[in-house]
Amino acid sequence: MSFVNAAFHAVPSVQSLPAYESSVDLARELRGEIDIRLDLRHAGIRQVTLRYELLGDAGLPVVLVAGGISAHRHVVASATFPENGWANALAQPGRALDPAHRRLLAIDYVGADGKLDVPLETADQADAIVQLLDALGIARLHAFVGYSYGALVGLQLAARHPDRLRRLVAVSGAHRAHPYASAWRALQRKAVALGQLQCADAQGLSLARQFAMLSYRTPEEFDERFDAAPEIINGRVRCAAEDYLDAAGAQYVARTPVNAYLRLSESIDLHRLDPARVGVPTTVVAVEGDRLVPLADSVALVEGLNAPGASGRGQLRVLRSPYGHDAFLKETDRIDNILVAALRDADRNENGVSA
Amino acid sequence: MSFVNAAFHAVPSVQSLPAYESSVDLARELRGEIDIRLDLRHAGIRQVTLRYELLGDAGLPVVLVAGGISAHRHVVASATFPENGWANALAQPGRALDPAHRRLLAIDYVGADGKLDVPLETADQADAIVQLLDALGIARLHAFVGYSYGALVGLQLAARHPDRLRRLVAVSGAHRAHPYASAWRALQRKAVALGQLQCADAQGLSLARQFAMLSYRTPEEFDERFDAAPEIINGRVRCAAEDYLDAAGAQYVARTPVNAYLRLSESIDLHRLDPARVGVPTTVVAVEGDRLVPLADSVALVEGLNAPGASGRGQLRVLRSPYGHDAFLKETDRIDNILVAALRDADRNENGVSA
Repeated sequence: MSFVNAAFHAVPSVQSLPAYESSVDLARELRGEIDIRLDLRHAGIRQVTLRYELLGDAGLPVVLVAGGISAHRHVVASATFPENGWANALAQPGRALDPAHRRLLAIDYVGADGKLDVPLETADQADAIVQLLDALGIARLHAFVGYSYGALVGLQLAARHPDRLRRLVAVSGAHRAHPYASAWRALQRKAVALGQLQCADAQGLSLARQFAMLSYRTPEEFDERFDAAPEIINGRVRCAAEDYLDAAGAQYVARTPVNAYLRLSESIDLHRLDPARVGVPTTVVAVEGDRLVPLADSVALVEGLNAPGASGRGQLRVLRSPYGHDAFLKETDRIDNILVAALRDADRNENGVSA
Repeated sequence: MSFVNAAFHAVPSVQSLPAYESSVDLARELRGEIDIRLDLRHAGIRQVTLRYELLGDAGLPVVLVAGGISAHRHVVASATFPENGWANALAQPGRALDPAHRRLLAIDYVGADGKLDVPLETADQADAIVQLLDALGIARLHAFVGYSYGALVGLQLAARHPDRLRRLVAVSGAHRAHPYASAWRALQRKAVALGQLQCADAQGLSLARQFAMLSYRTPEEFDERFDAAPEIINGRVRCAAEDYLDAAGAQYVARTPVNAYLRLSESIDLHRLDPARVGVPTTVVAVEGDRLVPLADSVALVEGLNAPGASGRGQLRVLRSPYGHDAFLKETDRIDNILVAALRDADRNENGVSA
């Protein structure tokens, strides 16, 4: 991948292309974007804008943190960007992702702005990240911590560009989309299509998101929160969880272009790779009760990493959580413990550079 | 409940109101309907037509077989009504529900014709069944075998009218709708509403049914059947299960009035009863992997049946099946074994009448 065509726009004002992380005094809290030419598997070469955020002093080990399809480049609140990030709790002082000790890099996924209405692959995301690392002068990530879609992208990065990361932590994501989860997402996309049929795009997207919420959470959580008897309102039964789901749908619609949702959702279903190709040490984190990624798939992934001839080696950590697929965002202490251990291993392997 | 207002239309020609089953020579294969006045919990007194089918010689022990919201009065193929029934495999010669040894009674649920656009309760269904039993001169059912919605109706019958059945077999249904399952159904109803926004009722109902199919089945089954990689068709990702789901949706739309679906779906969510009120011996059958009725709820139901002061007593049978909620329709041998044992117990308790 070349970055000859990369145009670089950093906010706040950073005038020059940064070189290798340890030698340039970049702003500690930086939001920027680069224009890249990306060779998409299903749509040929396209010019896309890749938006990123960097937080933490130059010279610290760089950890790329990548979340689900609705995550973005803003991981945690900072002085310059004070709104809460999508993984705010995990990047607090004393945590594994403490920006005082790690330099956190995150992106808006390719397609997240809704401007690219073509099929996207997780491999496309990984290739885009390599161009960003080149542009930022980051030879190799200290670690890639990926959750959900981010785990899929991390696996592709580790398979296609193993020299660009020392270690992968793949949470709630495996080497394939499970057929049942794919069916669930396909129906969500049909809800969007049904909405679009009648110029009710927002309702369709909201409904899709609400079905997705069910796949992210568990019956245990719903039982605790929504055990009240249903009401009859205007002659229709309304269940206890509906207010919550409506709010979740509306919140999502307000911040998500329909195309972004559709193309990133599809991208999960296109994801398939051979675990034996993953070329770096990998910690796979599975959540028992995850309704999208069954434990069996996480086990198969780790077994594939450790297979004779496999280029990586892996370990499996299993959580049981009432938050299911969303445990990464909710089980702060337990996820942090796992990240602490995984990043400590990465530190040890770095031969002299430690956090 | 009185049946003073019951009008009786039997097909084929049965001219007179039948009296008690053992003393009247009814046709062996009978499809009929009665008009009843039903005091609905949420809509007051309504005249409704209750359609039923009876199969098996008069004098045999009568077993009412009640299925899910899309089941109906036609349980099994017969000479007069040769199309396959919804529980065809379970009512074959040698099975527990062999019409040579049991007289099978089944109904179209109240609301199934789509003409009653009001909230319906499982208790309303139970009360309607009592009127039917009165009209048919059936003092007491030998057993009530209910699956899914039928289990809920059976529990209500056993709680409200324990003198009208000797034994209940409640498969894949409990004393309450689980909040997560209710949320899932509520979103299906929203899919219908989204379709209705602009006269795309069929698409909305089809989508609702497709989401329902996911709740009826399991990831294990989808993994076995739909493991193929998705295709890209007209620039859109199409997953392996979509053909199957589309067909299931279309099939459902062709036979289901939208109102019937909506009101019976709501009825599941309105279902709540105290297990201690169930007044007859009950076999609860739970399926591990049922995504609508968690095993914990079946356990709570049985514990409630056996509680001090409870009027019924219960036993729990647990299956593990890749068919999840639909195991009743798929695991013929295993379900039949359970029914054989449960109905044998009913025979023993009947003091002299045996099948």
